[in-house]
Amino acid sequence: MTNPSLMKKAFSPASIGNACVGFDLLGHSIAGPGDRVGVRKIDEPTVRIRAIRGLDLQLPLEAERNTAGRALIALREALGLEFGFEIEIDKGIPLGSGMGGSAASCVAALVAANALLDAPLSREALYPFALDGEAAASGSRHGDNVGPMLLGGLVLTTAERMVRIEVPAAWHCTLVHPEQVLETRRAREALRGHYALGEFVAQSANLAQVLVGCMKGDEDLVRAGFADVLVEPRRAPLIPGFAQVKQAALDAGAFGASIAGAGPSVFAWFATRAEAEAAAAPMRAAFSRAGFDSQSLVSPVAGPRAEVL
Amino acid sequence: MTNPSLMKKAFSPASIGNACVGFDLLGHSIAGPGDRVGVRKIDEPTVRIRAIRGLDLQLPLEAERNTAGRALIALREALGLEFGFEIEIDKGIPLGSGMGGSAASCVAALVAANALLDAPLSREALYPFALDGEAAASGSRHGDNVGPMLLGGLVLTTAERMVRIEVPAAWHCTLVHPEQVLETRRAREALRGHYALGEFVAQSANLAQVLVGCMKGDEDLVRAGFADVLVEPRRAPLIPGFAQVKQAALDAGAFGASIAGAGPSVFAWFATRAEAEAAAAPMRAAFSRAGFDSQSLVSPVAGPRAEVL
Repeated sequence: MTNPSLMKKAFSPASIGNACVGFDLLGHSIAGPGDRVGVRKIDEPTVRIRAIRGLDLQLPLEAERNTAGRALIALREALGLEFGFEIEIDKGIPLGSGMGGSAASCVAALVAANALLDAPLSREALYPFALDGEAAASGSRHGDNVGPMLLGGLVLTTAERMVRIEVPAAWHCTLVHPEQVLETRRAREALRGHYALGEFVAQSANLAQVLVGCMKGDEDLVRAGFADVLVEPRRAPLIPGFAQVKQAALDAGAFGASIAGAGPSVFAWFATRAEAEAAAAPMRAAFSRAGFDSQSLVSPVAGPRAEVL
Repeated sequence: MTNPSLMKKAFSPASIGNACVGFDLLGHSIAGPGDRVGVRKIDEPTVRIRAIRGLDLQLPLEAERNTAGRALIALREALGLEFGFEIEIDKGIPLGSGMGGSAASCVAALVAANALLDAPLSREALYPFALDGEAAASGSRHGDNVGPMLLGGLVLTTAERMVRIEVPAAWHCTLVHPEQVLETRRAREALRGHYALGEFVAQSANLAQVLVGCMKGDEDLVRAGFADVLVEPRRAPLIPGFAQVKQAALDAGAFGASIAGAGPSVFAWFATRAEAEAAAAPMRAAFSRAGFDSQSLVSPVAGPRAEVL
């Protein structure tokens, strides 16, 4: 018999996927908003969602279709667990914000469930189940949101692994979330079609400079590379005000600015917290001139990881 | 009056362009073969090539069409020099070998001419002229051969800059040059057409893992990323025996193996010099089974840079 009253709770921060020029590959966590998930063992060999509360109540309660549910189903099956899980989700990240809302529920659920295991797994070992969970929402196993939530900070994610990329602690991100909706489906459709080898080489050069610049703490190299020539030009027309918000960030001294995740939020990196904070008002003003209210937040690029509460 | 008798000579090593998965972006120099170039000042405000000796006598003597000549023309013009240069080239790198033969003449000429200046430039400042020179041979300003020759070792090169990527000194490269000819033009034609976003993401993930793996000295990460899914599959059919040579390298413990530059040479990376040396015979045997004699050489991945003699 398992103890039905024992619930473990975990918090996962939000994150920015598709960070800089790392489409589907690079993301970083954000201090501040996040999802809280409670998980308890149940005797029934199943996974069920008891409640979803908070910012978004449109999420599926059916475990298989929910990122948290799908991740724990995958965990149970892989480990051959005899018991099941019951999940309660408190959403703190608005869906469709480009802040990894669906990924955070999934990661918080895994971290909480992991704490209930007799032999908890490493964060690396949880990664495949987080990819399974992410696929429930997006249809693809991309790790650029769940990876940063599991490890913290800036993380390179592939189908097989997560690699933490160290960045200077002083570097900060400003994220501005406009009150406009951009469906991920539309954002994905904008990327259909063919690509030229030249686009690939230019984008790769930029990604390489950002990665090496981060690891060397070389701001100039990050500035040189922080220019998405492949994905951003195809998606920016879907975000009214994007060009003006980006320019406001650059005028405020940003290394660069781009679309957070699949949008519509816009993020920019700065050398210091003070610069990042000073950029928020002009970035929001630019969205306002385009007709959209917005919220902003500032976080270290090396944000926190998900933790048991 | 300049002193017509004063000649500076420089040596540039060979290099491997398109290294690993860094098409047009990543290359490393090789210890061993190279080009020697002598440069002297002349009173006439021009650049001329007095002689080309050595392995390849098919090269243009017309300065504008020769990589060394073009680079020094660009240098003269940029610095507003009143004097000219006369160049003598001793080729030590066979053209069409995928070892950067045209780039080496260009870099050696620049390094020699630079030593004749009252205020010599940094290697970084010579880079744009090296790109000009490279364009005389290939028609494009790609830096993945000239960059490693100027800086030494493994170098990330973009249109604007070179960034040295540190790698462990123990890592070695085996290069096998078969006696077959693959025209760069044909190798370029194989890359025509369109590319899918998924190919790009997979290749970028691999490039990122190689770069981060090199910088962290993490052999597993380099192994994970050393798989060219974009360029190699399109060019490999042009190189008889390629698949077998690559497999021989992998069987000998290589991190990975791929086409050097535009081919037809094949290179592989290993954790130690001993492994790299042991791999040469089976790699050559594989080319032999495909009907081609070959030469091989072993070099640290962190090879030397061009130097004044």
